[in-house]
Amino acid sequence: MEPVRWTGKTLQLLDQTRLPLQEEYVEYRHYEEVAHAIRTMVVRGAPAIGAAAAFGVVLAAQTAVAAGREVKEEVTKAVEVLAATRPTAVNLFWALNRMKRKAEEVSHLPAEEAVRLLAAEAEAILQEDLANNRAMGRYGAELVPEKAGILTHCNAGALATAGYGTALGVIRAAKEMGKDIHVFADETRPLLQGARLTAWELQREGIPVTLITDNTAAFVMQKGWVDLVLVGADRIAANGDTANKIGTYGLAVLARHHGIPFYVAAPFSTFDLSLKNGAEIPIEERSPEEVTAFGGRPVAPPGVKVFNPAFDVTPAELITAIITERGVIYPPFTENIARMMGN
Amino acid sequence: MEPVRWTGKTLQLLDQTRLPLQEEYVEYRHYEEVAHAIRTMVVRGAPAIGAAAAFGVVLAAQTAVAAGREVKEEVTKAVEVLAATRPTAVNLFWALNRMKRKAEEVSHLPAEEAVRLLAAEAEAILQEDLANNRAMGRYGAELVPEKAGILTHCNAGALATAGYGTALGVIRAAKEMGKDIHVFADETRPLLQGARLTAWELQREGIPVTLITDNTAAFVMQKGWVDLVLVGADRIAANGDTANKIGTYGLAVLARHHGIPFYVAAPFSTFDLSLKNGAEIPIEERSPEEVTAFGGRPVAPPGVKVFNPAFDVTPAELITAIITERGVIYPPFTENIARMMGN
Repeated sequence: MEPVRWTGKTLQLLDQTRLPLQEEYVEYRHYEEVAHAIRTMVVRGAPAIGAAAAFGVVLAAQTAVAAGREVKEEVTKAVEVLAATRPTAVNLFWALNRMKRKAEEVSHLPAEEAVRLLAAEAEAILQEDLANNRAMGRYGAELVPEKAGILTHCNAGALATAGYGTALGVIRAAKEMGKDIHVFADETRPLLQGARLTAWELQREGIPVTLITDNTAAFVMQKGWVDLVLVGADRIAANGDTANKIGTYGLAVLARHHGIPFYVAAPFSTFDLSLKNGAEIPIEERSPEEVTAFGGRPVAPPGVKVFNPAFDVTPAELITAIITERGVIYPPFTENIARMMGN
Repeated sequence: MEPVRWTGKTLQLLDQTRLPLQEEYVEYRHYEEVAHAIRTMVVRGAPAIGAAAAFGVVLAAQTAVAAGREVKEEVTKAVEVLAATRPTAVNLFWALNRMKRKAEEVSHLPAEEAVRLLAAEAEAILQEDLANNRAMGRYGAELVPEKAGILTHCNAGALATAGYGTALGVIRAAKEMGKDIHVFADETRPLLQGARLTAWELQREGIPVTLITDNTAAFVMQKGWVDLVLVGADRIAANGDTANKIGTYGLAVLARHHGIPFYVAAPFSTFDLSLKNGAEIPIEERSPEEVTAFGGRPVAPPGVKVFNPAFDVTPAELITAIITERGVIYPPFTENIARMMGN
């Protein structure tokens, strides 16, 4: 599965707003369109939007060359516009910073060569993410019992990344190791990434999955059907506090209440060591219409007030461990995150 | 607001599947249609389905008289059919038993007089529920601080009862007492009773309400915006274990984690002292399509496995108190429920 595809000249994104009913790629030639695609969640998932934004920068550089404009200037503008799309997932800023540094590095080169090197950098971001996912999968799968019920939230799968997944990468790896697993996928309101994307991904892989409403998560835990909770992340602070899709924090509380381990799977690009703790993570609020309408059909009285944060922050003390591409990080997180990341 | 209306000859139900977009009454002349309306949730909410079923029995008796058939026989058949509609809310069985007893009591009378007395009994069920709601409101409102954020789930309002509400009855009463309250209404997947019904009811009453996804409940608690959780109930066992709309149990765990009081508001007709605890409460599972489709539009891959229980059971130890029409019941629940109910 390739949610983000580079053709050599254009960016193709698998339109995730139309899944699972339609499997359709949209082609992009201008960074402004890529910014729009990120904002409207044609592409979503922290690592995937990082990669898409990186290619958005490449498109900007191409446009500059074609128009005879300054590459560095166009890149700077593109980085600004792409950075303003969504505030929470730090992978976006991480990827854009990496592209900005590369643009500076290659600014003395002939424009077309600079563009090639920028494209190679974006491609590297994508390929490294895939490799990181597989490494995370191997480390994480060790934590999965031979026979396990796993609850996951939103989509931290192939579609959210370069193509293997963070939380779902661990699930894929556990399956590849021959473990007898069963996944409970929260549908994940308001945008139903669990129903539309996670259920679809797992079904295609032949991994047993049961779709539940978010309201049913506590019930399946109470029944004893869940051996671990496994989620992705959009930003992890230096102390381990983790921003992820709205509803994740509630699951962490429920997992603690039921004595169920709660794991976060995320690459280093999701860590933001500049933030001491989760209180500093900016939380995106999205449009009320995501809650009050469904496929254009209203499901709430007109004018009702809505609070629609897209993410929440799970305090580190509710997290059993964080699965990264270099290994599993256990508490105390502040020390162990710093050590693992080599600071 | 009158979700259940008796015209003297027919039953009218406010079609709750069409709210808030259409406010439309459907008229019923046959008990089989009433059974269908309960099953498809044209009428829903434990006390409201009890009242609707009671009038279904009256319709059966009327039909018997018109057709020159035995009233008692027709009533027995109707009770059976109506009892088979939904398994969890005990108010349904309570109301049907009450009607059955009345049918026996009046079986020696002329048929038309028997029908009149059955209609009066159903009307009494409806009016008593309204009075009980108001009493619950007065007792419950005392528990609400002068300025309070209240989180509620599903719809335990006028629409779920004879017309005032259990949980929302308490909220109405608090408002009438001049308290400065703000309600967070969980949208309540899969059928969105919070978005469609609770938000609509409160908006009409001018009670400040913010609609949130079920996933956002933990977030608003974490922010410190919730001073109490207030829900209705579908069946309460002798020890206080409470079945209510799926998601309620998770909220109770979250409330406990955040040190927030968790109140259940329910009339005596919701208590089932024949059950020692919640493990004995039958939990209805409803169609997968409630989760996989939305207004006929699929939102999940075809053929995906779904687990869709309509209710869950909150253990008594997570409940701060139960608000009834005769007062507030505190732990130890087994003793205090028995005492309050005069056993």
